[in-house]
Amino acid sequence: MSCASEEENDSKLSIWYYGEDKSILGKALLHLTAVEISLDVDADRDGVVEKNNPNKGTWKWGPKGHGAILLVNCDSEWRYAKTLDSEQNFISTDSDLKDMSLMVLRTKGPAKLPEGYKLTMHISQGDAESIRVFMKHYPMMLNSGVLTREVPYVGGSEEVHFYVEGRRFPDKDFNGLISINLSLLEPINQALPETPIFTDKVVFRVAPWIMTPNTLEPIEVFVCSTSDNKKFLQGMRNLVGGSGYKLKICHEYVNRGDRWMQDELEFGYVDAPHHHFPVVLDSPRDRELNNFPYNVLLGPDFGYVTRVPHRRDVSSMDSFGNLEVSPPVTVNGKEYPLGRIIIGVAFPTATKGRNMTKVVQDFLWAQTVQEPVALFSDWLVVGHVDEFMTFVPAPDRKGFRLLLTSPDAGYKLFRGLQRDGHGKAKLFDVLGKNLGIPKPFGPKVNGHCALEAEMCRLMDGLGLKCTFIDDFAAYHKLLGEVHCGSNVRRKAFEFKWWNVEM
Amino acid sequence: MSCASEEENDSKLSIWYYGEDKSILGKALLHLTAVEISLDVDADRDGVVEKNNPNKGTWKWGPKGHGAILLVNCDSEWRYAKTLDSEQNFISTDSDLKDMSLMVLRTKGPAKLPEGYKLTMHISQGDAESIRVFMKHYPMMLNSGVLTREVPYVGGSEEVHFYVEGRRFPDKDFNGLISINLSLLEPINQALPETPIFTDKVVFRVAPWIMTPNTLEPIEVFVCSTSDNKKFLQGMRNLVGGSGYKLKICHEYVNRGDRWMQDELEFGYVDAPHHHFPVVLDSPRDRELNNFPYNVLLGPDFGYVTRVPHRRDVSSMDSFGNLEVSPPVTVNGKEYPLGRIIIGVAFPTATKGRNMTKVVQDFLWAQTVQEPVALFSDWLVVGHVDEFMTFVPAPDRKGFRLLLTSPDAGYKLFRGLQRDGHGKAKLFDVLGKNLGIPKPFGPKVNGHCALEAEMCRLMDGLGLKCTFIDDFAAYHKLLGEVHCGSNVRRKAFEFKWWNVEM
Repeated sequence: MSCASEEENDSKLSIWYYGEDKSILGKALLHLTAVEISLDVDADRDGVVEKNNPNKGTWKWGPKGHGAILLVNCDSEWRYAKTLDSEQNFISTDSDLKDMSLMVLRTKGPAKLPEGYKLTMHISQGDAESIRVFMKHYPMMLNSGVLTREVPYVGGSEEVHFYVEGRRFPDKDFNGLISINLSLLEPINQALPETPIFTDKVVFRVAPWIMTPNTLEPIEVFVCSTSDNKKFLQGMRNLVGGSGYKLKICHEYVNRGDRWMQDELEFGYVDAPHHHFPVVLDSPRDRELNNFPYNVLLGPDFGYVTRVPHRRDVSSMDSFGNLEVSPPVTVNGKEYPLGRIIIGVAFPTATKGRNMTKVVQDFLWAQTVQEPVALFSDWLVVGHVDEFMTFVPAPDRKGFRLLLTSPDAGYKLFRGLQRDGHGKAKLFDVLGKNLGIPKPFGPKVNGHCALEAEMCRLMDGLGLKCTFIDDFAAYHKLLGEVHCGSNVRRKAFEFKWWNVEM
Repeated sequence: MSCASEEENDSKLSIWYYGEDKSILGKALLHLTAVEISLDVDADRDGVVEKNNPNKGTWKWGPKGHGAILLVNCDSEWRYAKTLDSEQNFISTDSDLKDMSLMVLRTKGPAKLPEGYKLTMHISQGDAESIRVFMKHYPMMLNSGVLTREVPYVGGSEEVHFYVEGRRFPDKDFNGLISINLSLLEPINQALPETPIFTDKVVFRVAPWIMTPNTLEPIEVFVCSTSDNKKFLQGMRNLVGGSGYKLKICHEYVNRGDRWMQDELEFGYVDAPHHHFPVVLDSPRDRELNNFPYNVLLGPDFGYVTRVPHRRDVSSMDSFGNLEVSPPVTVNGKEYPLGRIIIGVAFPTATKGRNMTKVVQDFLWAQTVQEPVALFSDWLVVGHVDEFMTFVPAPDRKGFRLLLTSPDAGYKLFRGLQRDGHGKAKLFDVLGKNLGIPKPFGPKVNGHCALEAEMCRLMDGLGLKCTFIDDFAAYHKLLGEVHCGSNVRRKAFEFKWWNVEM
C-alpha cells in the first residue's frame, strides 16, 4: 500500500486458489488497514521538529552529526516559594514547556485504530531516572514510576505533542544518552499483553553544563557588600560601570560577612537548539554565602545544580576560585573549541594533600566537552588556581594570553628600580578589555606607582586597560584579592557544544 | 650504568673540558648512584608475582591477555561477631592476606637512598573508593583517606610485600580497573614537595561475581525445614543423599516459616589466579529468610554481597527464582563461555508491570562476563523465570537442553491418553544427572502415573534420572515448587573469566 487508509479495512486483496487443471478451488479476501506512525524529534538540531528523520534513533557528535538534545529542567518558573522545576510533579506554567524538548507523534490513518490495537510509549528503567515525558493539560506520561503508557491515537492526519524533560546532568554513572520508544500493539487475547508489531525509537543526549572563560563577554558582575569594603565596592563600581556591564551587589543581610563571591559558585550555561539558559554550579564549600545561589540566583530561565559530598570532606580546594576554564585551545592536534576546565589539586606523590571533593570532580569530568586539566595548587596556603594564573583576551595569536604570577619577575623589577622590595601576587578580574587589578601599593617613581606602571606597560601591548582597585584591607589582608571577591556571568559560546568532534 | 649501586655514589663519571687549542679548561666529577626499582604483580595470571612484567601497567582480556586480578574481600575471617573483612580497618588474621593480591616492591641498591630521596606509593581519589593497600604488621598503607604514603626503602637486594584488597564489585559507576603507582622522589627544597623522577605503575581488575549454571557439578543443596514439609524434606534427602551431595537444612528457628530458599539468595563465586571462594548475592526480597545469607553463610572464604534499593520498590520480581544463568552458549558468533544471566522482567510495552529493582540489575550488568538477557516473565502470577524454564545437562550437542514448560504438550498428552485433564507446570532441580521433579499426581495407567512416565521417557534420552518429590501441600499450594524451595551451591567453572574475549 502506498498511502495511509482513510477508513478501517479500506484496501482489499483478492486471492484466488487454482487447482492443477486451472479450476478455481477457492477465493479469499484480505482486508488491509494502513497507518503511518512517526515519533519525531529535532534530530538535525535546527530548533524545529522535522518529519521522520532517518537518523533520529542514533546520536553522533560534530557538525555533520545528528541526534536530538535535552536540557536538564533545573531552573524554577517561580521566584518565590520555589523548587527546581524538575522536582515538581507537574508542569509549573506554560513557560516551563520551553525548557523541555518538543517530541511529536505524527499519525495518519482511519478515524480510529482497529479494535484492540493501541499505541504505547515506553522507556527503560535505567533511562527513567534521567527523564520525564509530559503532555500539555494531561497527567505525566512517563517517569521513574511509569515506564510505559498508552498514547492517544487521533484519527486522520494529526500531531500529538509531547514534552521531554531532562532531570540529571551527565555524571559518572550516566553518559547523557536516553531513548524513547513508541510501539503499535496488536491484541492477542485477554490473558496476554499485546505484541508490538511496529516500534519507532528516538534518542536524546542531555546537554552538558558548560563553563565560560574570560574571553567571553561579561553580562553581570557579582560582589558582596560588607561593613568594611567601601573602597573595594567603589573601585568595582567604577570599573564595571565604565565598562558598560551590570554590577550586582549581594548585601550583608544575605552574605553575613562572607565576601568570597568567587568561591561559592561558578556560572555556566546549558544549550540546546531550541533554548538555552545560565546555570549556576553551587560549591559544597557552604559558608555564609551558602544559600545565595539557590535563594537569589535560581529563577525563571536561571538554573541551579550542585553536588553533595559523600562525607564532610570539604576543604579550601572546593572553593571555586579553584575552578577555572581556559579559552579554546588545541592540544597535540586535538581541538577543545570550548576550552578546558582547570582544577587545582594536591601533588599526586605528596603524602598529605587537599583535593577538590570527588563528587564535584566526577561531575566536571562527566560533562566531557571541556575535558578537565588538574593542576598542582595545594602548595599555596589557600590553594586556589586563581591565585597564580588567569587568562586575558589578546588581539593576536590564540586570542588570549595566560598570565602567570612571577615572584621572580617582581623581584627583578624591584632590583631594576634599585630599591628593596618583595614579590607580590597579582590577581585580575577581566571585564572585556578592562582589567580589574588589586592595587599593589608599590614604590612611587616620579609620583607614579612603579608596579602599576610595569603592569600597564605589559598589558598595553595587548590592548588591555588596567584599573587598580584598593582591596588591601578588606580582601588582601584576609588572603584574597579582587578575583576572589567577585564573580562574572558571561555570554555563552557562539560555538555549539554538539559540534565538538569527540 | 649496567647494574645497581652497592654504595651511594659508587660510580663516577669524569668530564674534562677542552678549549679550542685543546688546552684543559677544567674538570668535573659526576657521582652516580643507581637504584633498581620495580613494583610487581601477577600480571601473567599464573598465581606467582613475576619480576617487572612489561605489561603490568595495562589490562587485556583473553587467553593472550595480561593484567593482575583483585578479589573483593567480601568474606569474614570470623564466624561469630562477624563483619565483612573489607569493612574492618585492619587485617583480621594472617589468613585474611590470601583474600588479597600480593604486590611486591623489589629494590636493589645501596643500604639507604641518598639524603632526601624517598619512595612513595600513591593512588587516585577515584580508585581509593575501591581498594586498600596493606603491609603485614604495619598500619594501613593506602585507603580512601590516605592516597599517598611513604614506602620503606630496604637496602641491598630486597623485597617488600604489600597486600591489595578490593572493596567494591564492578558496578554501574565502576568498571573494575584500578591503578597503583610507586614513585622515587627527589628533594627540591623545604618549601616544595619532592619531584617524582621515576614512576612505576601496576593495574588490577576487580574480579566479577560469577553465577553457576545447572551444568556445573553441585556441592551442597540448601532447603528449609518447616512444620509442614516433612514429605518434601524426605524426598530431598533421598535425592541429594542418593546423588552423593550434601543436604544443608535451614531450621525453622532461623527461617521462621519462610521456605523459599531459592528466592532469598543466589550462589556465585569470585576467582583470581591466587585464590577463589564462593560469594552469596543476597536478594533485597527480605522476608523471614532475610538474615540467613549474612548470619549463616558468610564466613571464612565464603563471601557476601548485596545491593540496597534506592526506594522500597521491591516486588516478587526481586526474588532470585527470577535470576538464572544459562550454560555456555554462542550467540551470532559471539561466545559466552560462562553462559548468560537470565532476568525476568515486565513486557516493555505493557503499561503496568513488575521489574527486578534497578540496583540489582545494574550490578548484574556490570559484571560483564555473563551478559544478561531480559525475558518477559511478569505474565505469571509469581513472575519468576524458573516457573517456565530450566537447563539440564545433556551428553550431546551444546551439552545441555533448555526445558520449557508446555501446557500444550501436557494437553496433547492427556488427549493421547483419552482422558480428561489439564496442563500443569513442571519444575525441576538439577542435581548432576538426577532431576528432582515436583510429583505431578497424574492419572494412573497400568498402576503408573502417566505424567511421570512421559517425563521419564523424555529425560531418559538425555541420560537423566527423574526423582519425583511430593511438594504438593507444602509448596505447590503456596504457588511454588521444588526449585523455589531449594538452592544449590555448585563448583566454579574450569574456564577462567579473564580468558573471555571482550
